[in-house]
Amino acid sequence: MPEGSTPLLLRQDSAAGVTRLTLNRPDSRNALSFAMLGALHHALAEIALDDSVRVVVLAAAGPVFCAGHDLREITAHRNDEDGGRAFFTAAMDRCAAVMQAVVALPQPVIASVQGIATAAGCQLVASCDLAVASAAARFCTPGVDIGLFCSTPAVALSRAVAAKPAMEMLLTGEMVPAEEARRIGLVNRVVPAEGLAAATDQLAGQIAARSAHTVRLGKAAFHRQRGLPLDAAYAHCAAVMTENLMAADAAEGIGAFLAKRKPVWQDR
Amino acid sequence: MPEGSTPLLLRQDSAAGVTRLTLNRPDSRNALSFAMLGALHHALAEIALDDSVRVVVLAAAGPVFCAGHDLREITAHRNDEDGGRAFFTAAMDRCAAVMQAVVALPQPVIASVQGIATAAGCQLVASCDLAVASAAARFCTPGVDIGLFCSTPAVALSRAVAAKPAMEMLLTGEMVPAEEARRIGLVNRVVPAEGLAAATDQLAGQIAARSAHTVRLGKAAFHRQRGLPLDAAYAHCAAVMTENLMAADAAEGIGAFLAKRKPVWQDR
Amino acid sequence: MPEGSTPLLLRQDSAAGVTRLTLNRPDSRNALSFAMLGALHHALAEIALDDSVRVVVLAAAGPVFCAGHDLREITAHRNDEDGGRAFFTAAMDRCAAVMQAVVALPQPVIASVQGIATAAGCQLVASCDLAVASAAARFCTPGVDIGLFCSTPAVALSRAVAAKPAMEMLLTGEMVPAEEARRIGLVNRVVPAEGLAAATDQLAGQIAARSAHTVRLGKAAFHRQRGLPLDAAYAHCAAVMTENLMAADAAEGIGAFLAKRKPVWQDR
Repeated sequence: MPEGSTPLLLRQDSAAGVTRLTLNRPDSRNALSFAMLGALHHALAEIALDDSVRVVVLAAAGPVFCAGHDLREITAHRNDEDGGRAFFTAAMDRCAAVMQAVVALPQPVIASVQGIATAAGCQLVASCDLAVASAAARFCTPGVDIGLFCSTPAVALSRAVAAKPAMEMLLTGEMVPAEEARRIGLVNRVVPAEGLAAATDQLAGQIAARSAHTVRLGKAAFHRQRGLPLDAAYAHCAAVMTENLMAADAAEGIGAFLAKRKPVWQDR
Repeated sequence: MPEGSTPLLLRQDSAAGVTRLTLNRPDSRNALSFAMLGALHHALAEIALDDSVRVVVLAAAGPVFCAGHDLREITAHRNDEDGGRAFFTAAMDRCAAVMQAVVALPQPVIASVQGIATAAGCQLVASCDLAVASAAARFCTPGVDIGLFCSTPAVALSRAVAAKPAMEMLLTGEMVPAEEARRIGLVNRVVPAEGLAAATDQLAGQIAARSAHTVRLGKAAFHRQRGLPLDAAYAHCAAVMTENLMAADAAEGIGAFLAKRKPVWQDR
Repeated sequence: MPEGSTPLLLRQDSAAGVTRLTLNRPDSRNALSFAMLGALHHALAEIALDDSVRVVVLAAAGPVFCAGHDLREITAHRNDEDGGRAFFTAAMDRCAAVMQAVVALPQPVIASVQGIATAAGCQLVASCDLAVASAAARFCTPGVDIGLFCSTPAVALSRAVAAKPAMEMLLTGEMVPAEEARRIGLVNRVVPAEGLAAATDQLAGQIAARSAHTVRLGKAAFHRQRGLPLDAAYAHCAAVMTENLMAADAAEGIGAFLAKRKPVWQDR
């Protein structure tokens, strides 16, 4: 089936505000072709502006979660006049932009990993705020096997996982089983394969039921403060807390808590 | 019993140089009211200047370690002319100052966590140098439940714990049992509830028996170098090591080690 | 046997490009004397320029991996006119330079830890890209026992291990068994004592069989991006990926992968 006849990326929006994006090129192991990266970037840009979306789930069709860059596409561009340089630059820039768009997205993003996630596919999982994995999922950054070190995946991996386990993945390219991925911090939860969708939906639903204003403000503050010195991080977050306290949903939430009733969010 | 009739914070000083600060508002779950934060800040400022204090233990009375900010106090200030903004700003600034005072304190601080530590209470544990937890202790940052994301707790939490487990706590608000808190790096040791005081005292006593000069210099160097680039971190710490080597206690300690005798510290 | 009559450091080069450096002062527990640090620095400087070396293994002769600085040498210099200050400064600077040379070395460095690694010996393990430990290995930073806080070891330790476990090692000086060292991220793999050499050789051989150009470029990118803000890290690594894609070994590696044949590296 030619690319284009079916959407690269499926989007399903639930009434509860959970948007599921599904990588939909199972025949090419959901490779991050230039077009797939474009579809992801476009979808994230739309979602960023869409107040009805409270949480995003990133999933994949077929047995593989995502096999990273599209090596056939890369190889085809070696025939370009410049040997591929312009395309490689554009592809790497687009990939880095997508990963940063996941982090910068106002809504939390949960990876739901049913199978193997390699190279930029593993980077995608590392870039998400949370990750739920099937016990059958596995993770690796095997660029060293093909002469292409996973340097950009290392950016996300080394911000999720300690230095030595990250280096081991990058230098050996070996597969990391789901439980080990949880141990090192790459995923949050491991569930039986048949329970992955339900476990992801439960987690997404739990977050979607909270004040969207509060969740957005908190995700942004988390990422903003991470790289700052301690005093600057506190200065930023103390100011965020004050604004949060002045917002309607904090008044409602705290009031409901003290009155032992259920809060009703206005999402502001 | 009205606030003020019993001290908010108890201070006990041992002959060995271990000072135990006990949050003493069990009826309000040791909430960090504006007054409690002030008492903590004041106590830490006194201890910072007190050479007789070698180690600080931070503990709590009653079944709860600390429930975070005082929500009744916050709610009361919504009736202020400015809707609470001035008070919220002052409270968040004071809280951030207390947390930074724990890190900046010359002496190591050990959290001794007997029960639930939530929100800013969890942040307090994350801010300590070490933490010993009862097997009955639990940890969470449940601000999302009340429309108030735990943004300032995230500062301390994300510096103690990897990104995905930190985000899971912040976005779900779920309780983390003591053993899981140890797994993710939030506490050092988990002991049976009835052994908490003894285990904390053992750890505190072990550190108090060392040269106070050496321990202070080392704690300061640790925190100073953490955020620096590798070369700047080494430049700083190599200079600290040289000063440490020139100090009386290093001459004594190394001499005693080579002579296989017990060192006698002068704390300088 | 007087220092000098046997080499401080043994170097063995395998045909496969694995260079094994062995600390060779078992009688002094492989202490990092000024001369030993010089020998290490010199060997690393040579290896950095030696394209035949693809991977470095750092091992040690005798039962102890490395006991840190040479306390007898330090004590002897207290009789210098300046009380030792000039020597201490030179020793600390040289030690910091060696540790940074391990990180900056173009080739990956694997610690192969057969026994106890203490203080600057533990720092050496923390500084390596990967570490394989015997089940009999143990790790500690016991400077507090001798009035000399492990401030420079803290630089490497706190970049490998989370804050609280690092602080526990630094403030207590307690021995950490191999399995616990793996749990906290200080070593990658723990193997039975009798299998250490084989396990290290297997790991080193696996990396040496890859394109040396790719591995070098990747190690450098990993360390370069680690301390950068997310956007700067991605800008750097996306540029590295493009250069990597333009290199001969990526064309060969990707081509071989698509053709399901074994790649033949040119190391460029």
